[in-house]
Amino acid sequence: MRIDLNSDLGEGFGPWRMGDDGAMLDIVTSANLACGFHAGDPGIMVATAAAAKARGVALGAHPGFRDLEGFGRRPLPLSAKEIEHLVAYQVGALMGCAALACHAVTHVKAHGALANLSNAEPGVAAAIARAVRGVDRDLVLVVMPGLPSERAGLDAGLRVVREVYADRAYGEDGNLTPRGMTGAVIADPAEAAARVVRMLEEGVVRTLSGRAIPVAIETVCVHGDTPDAVAMARAVRAALEAKGCVLGPFVA
Amino acid sequence: MRIDLNSDLGEGFGPWRMGDDGAMLDIVTSANLACGFHAGDPGIMVATAAAAKARGVALGAHPGFRDLEGFGRRPLPLSAKEIEHLVAYQVGALMGCAALACHAVTHVKAHGALANLSNAEPGVAAAIARAVRGVDRDLVLVVMPGLPSERAGLDAGLRVVREVYADRAYGEDGNLTPRGMTGAVIADPAEAAARVVRMLEEGVVRTLSGRAIPVAIETVCVHGDTPDAVAMARAVRAALEAKGCVLGPFVA
Amino acid sequence: MRIDLNSDLGEGFGPWRMGDDGAMLDIVTSANLACGFHAGDPGIMVATAAAAKARGVALGAHPGFRDLEGFGRRPLPLSAKEIEHLVAYQVGALMGCAALACHAVTHVKAHGALANLSNAEPGVAAAIARAVRGVDRDLVLVVMPGLPSERAGLDAGLRVVREVYADRAYGEDGNLTPRGMTGAVIADPAEAAARVVRMLEEGVVRTLSGRAIPVAIETVCVHGDTPDAVAMARAVRAALEAKGCVLGPFVA
Amino acid sequence: MRIDLNSDLGEGFGPWRMGDDGAMLDIVTSANLACGFHAGDPGIMVATAAAAKARGVALGAHPGFRDLEGFGRRPLPLSAKEIEHLVAYQVGALMGCAALACHAVTHVKAHGALANLSNAEPGVAAAIARAVRGVDRDLVLVVMPGLPSERAGLDAGLRVVREVYADRAYGEDGNLTPRGMTGAVIADPAEAAARVVRMLEEGVVRTLSGRAIPVAIETVCVHGDTPDAVAMARAVRAALEAKGCVLGPFVA
Repeated sequence: MRIDLNSDLGEGFGPWRMGDDGAMLDIVTSANLACGFHAGDPGIMVATAAAAKARGVALGAHPGFRDLEGFGRRPLPLSAKEIEHLVAYQVGALMGCAALACHAVTHVKAHGALANLSNAEPGVAAAIARAVRGVDRDLVLVVMPGLPSERAGLDAGLRVVREVYADRAYGEDGNLTPRGMTGAVIADPAEAAARVVRMLEEGVVRTLSGRAIPVAIETVCVHGDTPDAVAMARAVRAALEAKGCVLGPFVA
Repeated sequence: MRIDLNSDLGEGFGPWRMGDDGAMLDIVTSANLACGFHAGDPGIMVATAAAAKARGVALGAHPGFRDLEGFGRRPLPLSAKEIEHLVAYQVGALMGCAALACHAVTHVKAHGALANLSNAEPGVAAAIARAVRGVDRDLVLVVMPGLPSERAGLDAGLRVVREVYADRAYGEDGNLTPRGMTGAVIADPAEAAARVVRMLEEGVVRTLSGRAIPVAIETVCVHGDTPDAVAMARAVRAALEAKGCVLGPFVA
Repeated sequence: MRIDLNSDLGEGFGPWRMGDDGAMLDIVTSANLACGFHAGDPGIMVATAAAAKARGVALGAHPGFRDLEGFGRRPLPLSAKEIEHLVAYQVGALMGCAALACHAVTHVKAHGALANLSNAEPGVAAAIARAVRGVDRDLVLVVMPGLPSERAGLDAGLRVVREVYADRAYGEDGNLTPRGMTGAVIADPAEAAARVVRMLEEGVVRTLSGRAIPVAIETVCVHGDTPDAVAMARAVRAALEAKGCVLGPFVA
Repeated sequence: MRIDLNSDLGEGFGPWRMGDDGAMLDIVTSANLACGFHAGDPGIMVATAAAAKARGVALGAHPGFRDLEGFGRRPLPLSAKEIEHLVAYQVGALMGCAALACHAVTHVKAHGALANLSNAEPGVAAAIARAVRGVDRDLVLVVMPGLPSERAGLDAGLRVVREVYADRAYGEDGNLTPRGMTGAVIADPAEAAARVVRMLEEGVVRTLSGRAIPVAIETVCVHGDTPDAVAMARAVRAALEAKGCVLGPFVA
């Protein structure tokens, strides 16, 4: 079984860094790069794209709200048109940086509050999908299965790739439970790895109450900015390989 | 004789506007759009790209230093690599916005202090040319004839298009005289129009001292942000048409 | 009868300007200055403070959310602590700029979405009042009468000054009706001036339905950024003077 | 002998941090806080001011150029007036944040490229001194002895406090040698501590060539953002105490 392992990287800005991108790029098969609005600057974007290229890691845009101070985690009340514009801008910006690094952008995955909104509000999800298709209809949209983002991607005629999170709990609606909630974040690498393997074997996402939501999982997200990010990513990768999975980008 | 008329547009940000872009787009044949670093935001970029498309006006990127407060007119001491990165980012960002507006970016012209540096320092000029070629080797580089920017574009294997300014005086080196200098800016539309016609007829740029520098002029720049910008642009266009010039984008 | 006439000024940024601050400063008696987060930069702040000083116009801080692109009109979901911090920062910043211009900051009035929230959410109103008192307990808080901002100012032990708007309609709760609503903005200077005079004579704010809310009016706000701003401000001032009002800052 | 130990702190922004401010605040006696232009945001500024207050650490403003991406290390070609404005803005902003944290700003020390310029160009040094005096003439200006910043502070009638660096080499002009130069940065805590003690004992700064420049040293700067910052600061403090120095803020 083939599976992709993705992480959100390039989340520094100017003199600041977040997480150990070099170590993560040795583990994952796809990297979603911040595009300058919630994190990332041209230098970081080109350097991370080049590092991904050197390791055969696929490149995706990870656009967010323009909010460095809040790291794109604060919802902004934008219109659908405004969301289209900022997604198109950021995806294009990464394409420019990737081209300079002789790499190519193959997918898009929304960040933070923008992603949360796209998993709750069909209008936001549709705006993102329209922007992605408008920029390049061959781009893949990474979505959470069963939520508005998946529907919007399919409706826009985009290829969608369904993602599960290794280290986050799921609520009854199939969406992530809020970070602040007890049990929302799984800190133990072994536990997270076991969860991922089970989800893949069963073909389901399990909610907090134990309900099973059938899902065609194509990529697993591991976070790059938590204290144990590298250990977590290694544990997940090792568990997947132990089960016989072949890890590689979803875009061949 | 075929000639292009270009202007730097989309130079607002958020709630602020600069110049009358709608009127200018009815006059010029190419528009160079600010890309978010010295001016411009995703909404303005998409809207201006759409307005250009509707009028058959060609679209170019107008990248500058990241400096909204100084409008990109203050030189930043960046390395050649840093300049490559910021140009690639901004050109890509406009490509994304243009694609959303069903238009295409055909050229790049550096803005403000970045342009000035590229007309004085071969290293800066080469960095810009490398970035443009890295993003898309079919992009045209708009340059000032006889200066490092032209040389760098040719060396990079890019098609270059040579530009003259309707309303600016030229120094002995073929570069613009600084704005602050007496006579540097020609405010009278009729005088500017006459200058342009003469430059085209003679095939030369005339310096302050009267020296003639032979030039293959392919585009004429009219400013969009001065009080008489629209009157100036109309006068220049009318004078060119009166001489039998056919106005149109340099990229067919 | 003594009355203050205030306007929100200094709302440019870098190369951009909004409204005719010089003309407005000749009419109003208090100026609320943007402090760099939604508009305003150090140069504009010092220059506007100096221009206010030269005309005997009182100076207030007009803090808003950090959002140049949205001009502070988009609500950001900040905690009460975060609001305290950004208000203290901006009020202090204007104090520094005012001191350089040999002027003093006498009052604070929240801007845009921050003001709207403070008129609807007691927690936001209390955070603003705490910040103002924390920076300097002699600062006056400009509030909308009958709303949480007034209550919070009084609870914090601040002197509050109650404001009415010349050119905006009031809803049944005593708050402004949203700009997008029909009739929300009064464009005719004569009508706005007549409204202000009536409010002062009756000592009430009248809602859209005609209900009268008794109010001790101490200052009248005229906008500085609308097309007819200067005409509107002149009309309001002339009408007040015709009724025998003495115009002057509320802080002697 | 009484001596102050200062460090530049609060140099994070939004989600990013730089150095271990908590550990440094347990060691130093004065903290210079970034004010939002090259680093620092209102939340970080209030929190760091409160942490300094809790430990009896004196508070200073550390203003820099507006350049988050370059961390204020890139010189911007501003006019003297523009420098006055940005210093006044930032000092005031920290005063606001400090007041909210029940602490007070007692000194100002320029950051990065702004500091470098003030140690080379008398016009820049004078602009900074004018801004500081304009905001509050009781503020102390921290300067490098023998350089334009000291002269400007004295000419402006400010109290100046002379600083030496524990971990940086001095050139023949009494200024720091550029970071890129071999030997410019002393990485070994013991060596740095020994240097500081020798400078204090001799009352001189020693240049790379061994020349002694007599100096009345009132404060020692230890960096907060290098990998060994905390170890370095502890070593310097221990060495000073071992020599019988009493450590405390220069403003009693």
